[in-house]
Amino acid sequence: MRREEALRLVKQQITEHRYQHTLGVMETSIMLAERFGADAGKAELAGIFHDYAKFRPKDEMKEIILTQNMNRDLLSYNSELWHAPVGAYLVQKEAGITDPEVLDAIKYHTSGRINMTLLDKCVFLADYIEPGRGFPGVDDVREIAKTDLDQAIIGALRKTIFFLMKKSQAVYPDTFYTYNDLILKKEKVQ
Amino acid sequence: MRREEALRLVKQQITEHRYQHTLGVMETSIMLAERFGADAGKAELAGIFHDYAKFRPKDEMKEIILTQNMNRDLLSYNSELWHAPVGAYLVQKEAGITDPEVLDAIKYHTSGRINMTLLDKCVFLADYIEPGRGFPGVDDVREIAKTDLDQAIIGALRKTIFFLMKKSQAVYPDTFYTYNDLILKKEKVQ
Repeated sequence: MRREEALRLVKQQITEHRYQHTLGVMETSIMLAERFGADAGKAELAGIFHDYAKFRPKDEMKEIILTQNMNRDLLSYNSELWHAPVGAYLVQKEAGITDPEVLDAIKYHTSGRINMTLLDKCVFLADYIEPGRGFPGVDDVREIAKTDLDQAIIGALRKTIFFLMKKSQAVYPDTFYTYNDLILKKEKVQ
Repeated sequence: MRREEALRLVKQQITEHRYQHTLGVMETSIMLAERFGADAGKAELAGIFHDYAKFRPKDEMKEIILTQNMNRDLLSYNSELWHAPVGAYLVQKEAGITDPEVLDAIKYHTSGRINMTLLDKCVFLADYIEPGRGFPGVDDVREIAKTDLDQAIIGALRKTIFFLMKKSQAVYPDTFYTYNDLILKKEKVQ
C-alpha cells in the first residue's frame, strides 16, 4: 500500500492531534529502521497504522478482544492498552494489511513482548520518542536511541512502569516481561 | 517449638547483625499479626526462621533449587531471592518446622505471591519495616502499616521495584504479580 493511501485510511479514524502524532511515529519508525537495520517500508506502514483503533468505542474493543480470542487479561488492565491488539485485527480486516510482521509491530506497540523483533522495537520506540512527545525524560531516551535501541526501550519501559506505579495502577504483565527480557539478554551479553 | 529453641537454631546460621534484624522481624511480625488478625504464634515462628538460609553458599542454594524442583527461573534473577524458598525447605529438613502456613510465609517473604495469606503479608511487611531498617521511604510504609496492610505492602513493593529498575536489574515476576494482584483487588473493592 502506498503511503498516501495508508495515511488517507488512518486519517478517517483518528483526531487531527493524533494524526500529527502518527506522522511523527511514521517518520521516526523509518529513521530507527534505517539506523538499526529493520525494513523501512514495513516500519513506515506499521507507524502509519499503529493507532488505527485508538478512538474506537471501548465496548467495540472489548467485544473484539472477547470474540477474537485475544488475551482476556487485557480487560483487567488499563483500556489504553486495548487499541494495539484491536488495531492489528482491524487494519487486517478493514485496510487489508496482511503482513504478519507489520501486524505484530502494531499489536505490541504499547506493551512490548518477549523476543520483540527489530521492527517491533522500532515502532515501539518511535511511539515513545516521536518529535511531538514531551514526557519528562523523553530527551534522555532520544539520546540513548541514537546508539542503543534496546537500552532506549528499557528506558522507555522503566519510565512507563514508574508512571503507572506512582499512580497506583496495575502494570500489564507484557510490559514487565519485555523489561526483564531485555535486561536479562543484556546481562548475558556482558 | 519454643521461641528460645527457635532463636538458638537460627543464631547458629546467621551473623549477629542479621540476628538483630531477625529479632526485629519476629517482634514486628507478631505486632502485625495481632493488628490485622493473623496467628501470632505462626508469625513469631516464621519471623524467627525467615532468614535461616541467608548465609548458605550460593552453590548449595542453587543445588537445592534444582534438586527440589523449585522454580528454575529463580536462577536467572538476583540470588538475594534464593534464600527464601531454600530457607523454607531447610527449616523443614533441619529444624523440623512442618506447618505449611509458616513454611509458605518463609518461602514468599522476599517476592510475595499472588493471593498472599494474612500470615505471608505480616512476615513480608515485617521484613521491610522492622525497626532496624532504614531504607529511604520506610517511614512512609511504617505509617501506612498502622492501618492498611495491603497498601503498606504495595508501597514496599513499589519501592523495591523502583530500586531494582533504577539499577537496571531484572525484577522477579512474583514481585510484579504481587503488586498487580493487590492493586487489582483494591480496584475491585472500590
